[in-house]
Formats: sequence, structure tokens, C-alpha cells
Amino acid sequence: MAKVLMCKANISEGRRKEVLEGVANAVRAVAGVTLADWSGDPDHNRAVYTLLGSPEAVLEGAKALTESALENIDMSTHEGEHPRMGAVDVVPFIPLREMESDEAVGVAREYGAWLGARGVPVFYYEYAATRPERESLPKIRKGQYEALPEKLQDPAWEPDEGPAEFNPRSGATVTGARFPLVAFNVNLKTDDLEIAQTIARAVRHINGGYRFVRGMGFALEDKGMVQVSMNLVNYEKTPIHRVLETIRSEASRYGVQIAGTELIGSVPLGALEEVVRFYLQTHDFAIDQIVETALLD
Amino acid sequence: MAKVLMCKANISEGRRKEVLEGVANAVRAVAGVTLADWSGDPDHNRAVYTLLGSPEAVLEGAKALTESALENIDMSTHEGEHPRMGAVDVVPFIPLREMESDEAVGVAREYGAWLGARGVPVFYYEYAATRPERESLPKIRKGQYEALPEKLQDPAWEPDEGPAEFNPRSGATVTGARFPLVAFNVNLKTDDLEIAQTIARAVRHINGGYRFVRGMGFALEDKGMVQVSMNLVNYEKTPIHRVLETIRSEASRYGVQIAGTELIGSVPLGALEEVVRFYLQTHDFAIDQIVETALLD
Repeated sequence: MAKVLMCKANISEGRRKEVLEGVANAVRAVAGVTLADWSGDPDHNRAVYTLLGSPEAVLEGAKALTESALENIDMSTHEGEHPRMGAVDVVPFIPLREMESDEAVGVAREYGAWLGARGVPVFYYEYAATRPERESLPKIRKGQYEALPEKLQDPAWEPDEGPAEFNPRSGATVTGARFPLVAFNVNLKTDDLEIAQTIARAVRHINGGYRFVRGMGFALEDKGMVQVSMNLVNYEKTPIHRVLETIRSEASRYGVQIAGTELIGSVPLGALEEVVRFYLQTHDFAIDQIVETALLD
Repeated sequence: MAKVLMCKANISEGRRKEVLEGVANAVRAVAGVTLADWSGDPDHNRAVYTLLGSPEAVLEGAKALTESALENIDMSTHEGEHPRMGAVDVVPFIPLREMESDEAVGVAREYGAWLGARGVPVFYYEYAATRPERESLPKIRKGQYEALPEKLQDPAWEPDEGPAEFNPRSGATVTGARFPLVAFNVNLKTDDLEIAQTIARAVRHINGGYRFVRGMGFALEDKGMVQVSMNLVNYEKTPIHRVLETIRSEASRYGVQIAGTELIGSVPLGALEEVVRFYLQTHDFAIDQIVETALLD
């Protein structure tokens, strides 16, 4: 089977259509990369591009995207609702098929070194972090672009690549490797918000729940229901079915049933493999049995 | 999304490696076709090739495979355990993605006309059948190759394409369109064979069960268990989960539990979509949400 790497590149532009299209075309011009999806948000003034392909091709695609973005985006005039630190803001590399996270870290480091050499301060995060306090994106990005001039003078925030100097046009970039996320919501047949909040606390890591679950309880007012809204940040170690069955069990103590669930956005095939195995009790089922995967090689 | 057609071509050769490899290479030489899998069986003296790609490419691939097989296989000396009627024995076209069965029938008819023009009697079966008594492969193949000289003189067995004359070297070919099969076995934690046989009768079409289930009960002697072994011949109309839950319910009346299940060989993504929807209660989940499907387009 062929290796597949994903890259979700976030850039600080969500308004100028010709710039967004130009960045998309720069990716499409790279052989072997599939631009699976892209979308810009004018309020956030930010766009995200999803690249798929071999590790080598995706690295080239990320570089082409970066060149186009750096050429067209000037952070000194950027405004938007979403936290950001650079023209090319966050570039995670995500191993999808036949790749270990180490290999994705290698690609992130290669990308980071290349970008640093172009005069952009670069920080490594998640699996590529060089120290524990740089694992978390919100911690690195704290204070945003505006805090960079001061931050870069602090030895604790010496960049992992590139100059420890403020680059007003590009800002700084965060890159690294992480596991694919699964955004999973469970709707409960009750309008009692407290039940959703209690269950969210039962399953999320921060309150003693599953290690790779982040979540909150919400009201779905138009539906007269409540929702446990989650990100599963490592579906191999904390699989979807286990979280769902725990929620079912916790809800049943209040006599509440599950009305339905939502998988939001894209879902890796690997996350569904375990769903099929668990519920069908097909202990030996493997992704390569899916006919269509032959087309990925 | 791109159309994907599958072709499972069965040829009457399972022993001569150089012939089998030559047929595989003939397929590989056609642009746009993926040879997803092939294997030969010496006892059956038969091999099956799985082709994937656009309808146009798969048709070309099937033609290339056929030319190579007709050149190298002489039915007048063929022996093997598996029923067969021709050098190129059965060639079903199977719509996998973004295709209706009508379109697959169109490809089968184009292939059949091409093959008939080469002097091979051709019969259309399943969705491509020209009359009800030709829908079933076993009915068309009854008497096998050896019965062909007499059969072809019977007006009821006038071929759909090609001459109504016995071609000793090629024999006759059956082609058509069908839905993808799912081979699904359920193992029960009992050694009472009668329970598996009773449950097989409860779920299979012939005895009043689900319309698109064929099945039998077997003993798994080395495991001390029994098995309901099934072919689901239309997973959209008779989905996997419904059959499994019916078996679970029927088994429970004997106090018997499901030890596990097996999905044998290849499984179309479409068959798993409904599994995910049912068990996760994700009413809106669709295959295109799977990240990797972007690589299929």
C-alpha cells in the first residue's frame, strides 16, 4: 500500500478571492498532490487547504502553497476574528496511511527548515515540538501576531527555525505533525442542558474521562435537544465506538436516549475501521479489504 | 466524484503461471485501469482478475484481458473442478461509484458485441439478461462446455451475440452486470449445527428470509462452533447490519451468542456506509466524508 500524508495548511487570508484561488492553483500545479478541499472564511479572514498525497509530493505542495501565500499576504495590515500569528499560520502534517507519526515529523521539520531559511521564524508543535511547552498551539500563539516583536526577544521563545527577528510581513509560522481529528457530536433526546454537560465531563480527558477526548455540552434549541460535542484527537487509542457506548450508558441513568450523532467534516478511513470491527464483531476486518482502496496505491 | 466500474473476469486457466502473468500484464498495459487483484486456482484450473477504473478504461482492460486469454487457452483440452463454459468464462461488470446498473449493462453489452464479432458465442446474464431464463449464471452454464455443441443448436439457446456455432477453442462467454456481493459469515458460540441451519433458513430468501440473502449453516469443527455463511447480493436493499441483528435475535432464543463475524475478500465502501450510519446513528453520514475518497477523483 502507498503512503498517504495529509497537510491542512491555514493561511491568514479569507477575503481576496484571487489570492485564495492563486494559492489553490499553486498547489494544483504540483504533480502528485491532490487538493482535497479548501475554503476561506471572510470573518476569520483565514483559509484552510487540505492536501493529500505521498510525503514527498505533499511537502512540495506545502512549499508551493507557502510561496504563493507569502507573496500575497501582508500581516502588518491583517485583521480577522481568528487567532493568528503569521501569513502562513499553522501547517500540520497528518499521517493517514502506512505512515508513522515520526515520518510526518520528519516532513514537518524539512518544511520548517526550508521556511526558516526564507527568513520566517518557525515554531514546531505537537509531535514535532522541541520542548513540552511548545506542544500546544494556543500556548505558542498566545498574544498572536501583535505579541511577536516582544516574544522573539525572549530566549524562551527563540524560534526552532529561522531568525529570532520580527518579520512584519510574514509573521511567524507554526508547523508540526499531529494525528487526524474526528469531530463527533452526540444528540440526546432531552432539553436538559445539565445532562449534556455532565456527560461531557464524564467522557472528556480534563475531568477524568478518556485521554483523547475534548468536549462540551450544548443546547440545540431549535431541536429541543442537547448535544455532547467532541473532538476525538486520537481515534486509535480512544475509538469512536467506545466513547459513544459510554455516552449511551451514562445517558441511560437519566432515562435519556441517543437521538442521533454527527460526524462533522472529513473522517479518516482508519477511524471507521474500528467502528466496523466493533459493531459487526469482525475481529479480522482490515481497511485493505475495501475494494476502493486498491485505487489509492 | 468520478465513476468507478469494477470487472471480475473469470478465465479457464489456473495452472500455467506464464499465461496467468501474461493476462495480468495485458491488463496492466491499459492506461487508467487498476488491476486490484488476481489469483489462480490449480484445482479449479481457473483464475479471477479484478479490474477497477472508469467505465471506458475498464472496458478496454476487459478486452485486453480477453485477447490474451483467447490466444493462450484452448478449451478442447481444459479440465478442472469448477463449472465452466469458455476460455473467458464469466465477465461481470459491477457499478461501484457514481454509476447506475444501466450504465454497467451498457458496458457489458459493448463488450459482448465486441466479443461476439470475434466469433465467440456470448450470453448476457443478471441485469444484462435478454430474457428471464438467462438471468441466472448456473442456468446458462448448465451442462458446461461439453454441452455447448448440442445447446447451440437449440433455438432457445441462441446466443445474444456471436455465432450460434460451437467454437471448440474458445467455448462460450457469459457477461453482464450485477451488484457487488458481500460474503459475510456469522460464527455462533455453540456446536449445534441445527441452530446454524435453522438460522440460515430464517434469513435467506429461498425460505422466506431477506430478499438478497443466500446462505447455509456449517459446522466449524476445529473451533467447536457453527457458522451461518452468507452472500449478500444487494447490500443496499438488504444491508449487513439488518441481517446481523436478525441473526443475533434468532440466536438468542436458543441462548446462543455471536462469537464473531467475517467479511470475506473485498467489500465495497458503500456496504460499510450503512454499517456506520446504523450503529453510530449518524443519519447524515456519507462516503464522501471519508478523507481518502478525495484521492479517488
